[in-house]
Amino acid sequence: MTTLDFERATRLAAATLRHARELGVRPLAAAVLDAAGHPLAVLRDERASFLRPQIASGKARGCLGMGFGGRELARRAQAMPAFFDAINSLTGGEVIPVPGGILLRDGAGGLLGAIGVSGDTSDNDERCALLAIEELGLRGDTGDPQA
Amino acid sequence: MTTLDFERATRLAAATLRHARELGVRPLAAAVLDAAGHPLAVLRDERASFLRPQIASGKARGCLGMGFGGRELARRAQAMPAFFDAINSLTGGEVIPVPGGILLRDGAGGLLGAIGVSGDTSDNDERCALLAIEELGLRGDTGDPQA
Amino acid sequence: MTTLDFERATRLAAATLRHARELGVRPLAAAVLDAAGHPLAVLRDERASFLRPQIASGKARGCLGMGFGGRELARRAQAMPAFFDAINSLTGGEVIPVPGGILLRDGAGGLLGAIGVSGDTSDNDERCALLAIEELGLRGDTGDPQA
Amino acid sequence: MTTLDFERATRLAAATLRHARELGVRPLAAAVLDAAGHPLAVLRDERASFLRPQIASGKARGCLGMGFGGRELARRAQAMPAFFDAINSLTGGEVIPVPGGILLRDGAGGLLGAIGVSGDTSDNDERCALLAIEELGLRGDTGDPQA
Repeated sequence: MTTLDFERATRLAAATLRHARELGVRPLAAAVLDAAGHPLAVLRDERASFLRPQIASGKARGCLGMGFGGRELARRAQAMPAFFDAINSLTGGEVIPVPGGILLRDGAGGLLGAIGVSGDTSDNDERCALLAIEELGLRGDTGDPQA
Repeated sequence: MTTLDFERATRLAAATLRHARELGVRPLAAAVLDAAGHPLAVLRDERASFLRPQIASGKARGCLGMGFGGRELARRAQAMPAFFDAINSLTGGEVIPVPGGILLRDGAGGLLGAIGVSGDTSDNDERCALLAIEELGLRGDTGDPQA
Repeated sequence: MTTLDFERATRLAAATLRHARELGVRPLAAAVLDAAGHPLAVLRDERASFLRPQIASGKARGCLGMGFGGRELARRAQAMPAFFDAINSLTGGEVIPVPGGILLRDGAGGLLGAIGVSGDTSDNDERCALLAIEELGLRGDTGDPQA
Repeated sequence: MTTLDFERATRLAAATLRHARELGVRPLAAAVLDAAGHPLAVLRDERASFLRPQIASGKARGCLGMGFGGRELARRAQAMPAFFDAINSLTGGEVIPVPGGILLRDGAGGLLGAIGVSGDTSDNDERCALLAIEELGLRGDTGDPQA
């Protein structure tokens, strides 16, 4: 298994939005991108505010563009703010360095793509995605060295 | 029924992509937007080329931004090319005046949003969306005066 | 009298939208700009589609930026399409060369600003603005040589 | 009451500009947007500087796009500067995280839209809008947890 198809990407994004509803957190948007950074499924809860799909896509795209999960991007942005400001000016904001962007891997560790989530706190965004990732039998890489 | 929720928008977009596979046309992307032009579900067949989600979103957004289905936009763009060139320069390409953008209405004629489709010919894009719209019990307004 | 204040600009834009309702044409947006091209009042009928305020502003701004009413811009765009394409690429779509952009003048012919209207046919857009201009005792220059 | 019409939005924006005159603060621009972020009424005092309408619109749009009043956006931007820098690069400056952006709600707490104000200090901008909101019998959510 080395690619995500749109059916599975759609189930992953939809499951993320449903977990937010079950947990009672704010309504979310979720974006599932392939390994090349192109969208397979971008969903917005109809009650989520309208910048959320763009931010969710940006979280996922930044992870793929830099090769790290969102927690590692957040650590680096704190250590090297001028570098991250510069790459965001350069790329038009392609790297949103906060939790809620997660690399997706298959059982052998192969990169399948990424999911980005936005709408509640970064921790809750990530939590809803991880529940959906587990449900679908995928592996998520949040960039947390202790995970 | 006056709004689309994300579950229904997702089913509509997914059904459009599946109809393309059944009909043997090229792989598609489909974007379902709410009445204000914000995305609810943007799906790309994993074999579709990567600009398709953006073009699909643009078709739907142009219909909502101007208040007409894609066939009416196409007729107007042919009659008034300078006007359409100007509004695309002004808005950064918000109006893609071809078939494949369809306004979505409820049974009473109320505007629910729009779907845009891209990947094959404009006629085939539209055909796959109309099959999905019918399947979901919605009404589609393509801008065709004879429809 | 050489300037428009915001109160009068607001009355002019609002009267334009109300005339559209009375005449039964499609819902409009109207933008009243000062002579420098900066907005004083931009109003959108809540039922008008969402690109209309930007197009209305573009119609007014193009008239002021080039020094002619919309009918004269339309004539020139038809005679010199490459020139109008070029200035729209150059300026990001500042010139929308259709009727519905009208220069506003005081009794002595002094330039006060412009109004742009969008939502129905260009002729109906212009008609609603002219009714409002007359109501407020201003003079409108549509660029029509026979007017 | 679940939507703002243009007449009411216009009265709200105009009342904001008049309160600035009565209080003797600098001339203002005010933008009233519907819940989807599209303009209903954007007014600029003819003595206000010309970027004010764009900044006022940006304040209102950022509140709606993120789902918080301007004071909450300001707190978050101070706590997470890299996130806010990134989303502004990503979205072309959609989020202006300062007071003066206020969510508008009806009596039942339903979201009607937002108002953004610019021209004087952020505190004075907000103050003029709150006076107008009260006058019109609406509820404003500034994002202040103590309000």
